Amino acid sequence: FIPKSFLSKEAQHVEGFAKECAVITHSRLKSVDGGVEVDPDSRLEEELIVRPTSETIIWDAYRGWIQSYRDLPILINQWANVVRWEMRTRLFLRTMEFLWQEGHTAHATEQEAIEETLQMLEVYRKFAEDYMAMPVVTGVKTASERFAGAVDTYCIESLMQDGKALQAGTSHFLGQNFAKAFDVKFQDSDGEHKYVWATSWGVSTRLIGGLIMTHSDDNGLVLPPKLAPTQVVIIPIFKNDEQKSKAIYYAEPMIKELRANGVSVKLDDRDNFKPGWKFAEHEAQGTPVRIAIGPRDIENGNIEVARRDTLEKTIVPIQGSAEKITKLLATIQNDLFEAAKKRREESTQYAENYDDFKVMIEKGGFIYAHWDGTEKTELKIKEETKATIRCIPLNGDDTPGACMVTGKPSKKKVLFSRSY
Amino acid sequence: FIPKSFLSKEAQHVEGFAKECAVITHSRLKSVDGGVEVDPDSRLEEELIVRPTSETIIWDAYRGWIQSYRDLPILINQWANVVRWEMRTRLFLRTMEFLWQEGHTAHATEQEAIEETLQMLEVYRKFAEDYMAMPVVTGVKTASERFAGAVDTYCIESLMQDGKALQAGTSHFLGQNFAKAFDVKFQDSDGEHKYVWATSWGVSTRLIGGLIMTHSDDNGLVLPPKLAPTQVVIIPIFKNDEQKSKAIYYAEPMIKELRANGVSVKLDDRDNFKPGWKFAEHEAQGTPVRIAIGPRDIENGNIEVARRDTLEKTIVPIQGSAEKITKLLATIQNDLFEAAKKRREESTQYAENYDDFKVMIEKGGFIYAHWDGTEKTELKIKEETKATIRCIPLNGDDTPGACMVTGKPSKKKVLFSRSY
Repeated sequence: FIPKSFLSKEAQHVEGFAKECAVITHSRLKSVDGGVEVDPDSRLEEELIVRPTSETIIWDAYRGWIQSYRDLPILINQWANVVRWEMRTRLFLRTMEFLWQEGHTAHATEQEAIEETLQMLEVYRKFAEDYMAMPVVTGVKTASERFAGAVDTYCIESLMQDGKALQAGTSHFLGQNFAKAFDVKFQDSDGEHKYVWATSWGVSTRLIGGLIMTHSDDNGLVLPPKLAPTQVVIIPIFKNDEQKSKAIYYAEPMIKELRANGVSVKLDDRDNFKPGWKFAEHEAQGTPVRIAIGPRDIENGNIEVARRDTLEKTIVPIQGSAEKITKLLATIQNDLFEAAKKRREESTQYAENYDDFKVMIEKGGFIYAHWDGTEKTELKIKEETKATIRCIPLNGDDTPGACMVTGKPSKKKVLFSRSY
Repeated sequence: FIPKSFLSKEAQHVEGFAKECAVITHSRLKSVDGGVEVDPDSRLEEELIVRPTSETIIWDAYRGWIQSYRDLPILINQWANVVRWEMRTRLFLRTMEFLWQEGHTAHATEQEAIEETLQMLEVYRKFAEDYMAMPVVTGVKTASERFAGAVDTYCIESLMQDGKALQAGTSHFLGQNFAKAFDVKFQDSDGEHKYVWATSWGVSTRLIGGLIMTHSDDNGLVLPPKLAPTQVVIIPIFKNDEQKSKAIYYAEPMIKELRANGVSVKLDDRDNFKPGWKFAEHEAQGTPVRIAIGPRDIENGNIEVARRDTLEKTIVPIQGSAEKITKLLATIQNDLFEAAKKRREESTQYAENYDDFKVMIEKGGFIYAHWDGTEKTELKIKEETKATIRCIPLNGDDTPGACMVTGKPSKKKVLFSRSY
């Protein structure tokens, strides 16, 4: 909960969040005629806002904690539920209450704060790409898309299979805005009192939405091996208890070796479901590798290995299979990333003029185009095409050019897309 | 957020929580004369309650999820922040917003639900005693202390060093109360439609308060080794870089062996703090074992080992020290539990009559006494002595007797205390 007056201290911040606040005005219900009503006597003196983000609370605390340069840098990281009053909710991507991780730092120097901002951007990029196998573009937001109260908002932007962009994480350089609003000064080693420099950054359960929409198909979830709770499921195929025992006995050394390799393996030997039903269930749950072992496989010394990502099945000798499967998991992790990257590249277009842009945007995907840097042009494009500037990429083509709308000079192409 | 109407469905439940609700009535602020005000146009049609607990939300979902006996049992566990409008807050023990773990199950039979309730009580007891080294009494609450909407509330009750009781965790058998309020039925294997049987259970960050108040002393925190983030801190004592390097080199094989034993070790070789300052800091942070290594120790082939719990220091040969320290950690874990248990037993009294009880309660601690089982007597005792019945113990003395207040029959002694 944030007292209304806290939220008001940083003008831009309150403006940015005022329209999406859950406001608590009372602290009690009372029974009336068998039902309940809000008790008017419990009206609060000052309304409380359910935190849409915690900068103001953190900075009120920092004022008390920070005295000297010896107290810096300071970092608070928390997992918290926050609330934004969304009109159109979308499961995992945009919900009214969501769980996220938010970090807040204060530094003695501007440079250190900027370095922290970029370091966290890199942490998020690495997690998205190396663990979620979700390729992202890193960049900086335009002024109109910036976090309320930030000097610069950096982001990772990803492209979903339906051609829409997803902002998957943000890292903000807050400058001295919150330090000034909450009067957070420190005595530097030179004896002078100075305002601190700040950052904040966060990712949310939206990443789960991103994971689903990056890899999944009509059969259900597809999970990258590094994040799959079960990496390999083994399904013995049997008609009686003898066949079942035989299959389990046959699989045991392989299971043991897989586990010794650090692979999480589940043996699905339930009696009350048919193999086909189990196949479909594990497919829907996204288990990266499925192994089937039937009486014929045992006779021939084989197993059947199915990849969730490509749905390919291959017959593999059980001898040496554990090593092959361990390698296959690394291959799947890599292939999922490469496939997503290829899809993104195939959906990335380069517009040289505004007419082309308007045609391209209907196809969806990422579009790189020159923009004159003004909010006016940005808004015009948004109104006419529903495309927003996702970011000014950090590692992009730096060739200058002319804005596709106004013809004015542009330092480099920026990234447009429709988004969630 | 819980719509007011959800909370109203189970009459006892709404009664229990109505007086401690944060009520959201509006969804927007607006700028007025440079400040912000609640936008009256954003008034909600139905007020939302910030969840004090999630039964009603879970049961609204269960209605859709549960159709057949094959869907049972079902378990949802979540970590969530909840809000109760507390008048007198107390850090870690009673705060308006707190983080907790809450579990909710539904079962086909009454017996299975009761077993689940008791199983979770045992999970909480085990965690409190074996990990937190905090002895607890397990028992069932009286009707007046029961969770709103439960048939039976089981709890673990602990005694703090100041002689007050702390309810450290609860496990509720909800009977069919929520199933009936939310119309959750299943088709059983016999084809009949029946209401499910339910449980819910939770512990919160209050356990952190319990941990602090069970073990800590005037020098700061005391942490049981199983929960200490750093189990052993090593402080080299040096006047120059050469002495420092020598101490670190000397300590290295021991550190390596400790880590190989699974012990978390921190080498505190900071230059900018004196040893005494570091000693005090690690003492305040509760690190179970502190090792100091000075030039004289190195000469003699020794180290100095200090226990946080007893503040004892001993000189130990560095040869074989890793094994000794690993064992010492287990000893400290055990000793902390035994010390807390001894303190509790020394603060446990047995009242044979109400006059004695009134004298005893002023000393604080747990008091076992006979009670006639009526709410009237319970309330009288509470009003006259501020003591509440913490629980009817599960594993206590089962000797019947006469109520200390009314003389009426009592099945067994129950546990009284003043509490937080």
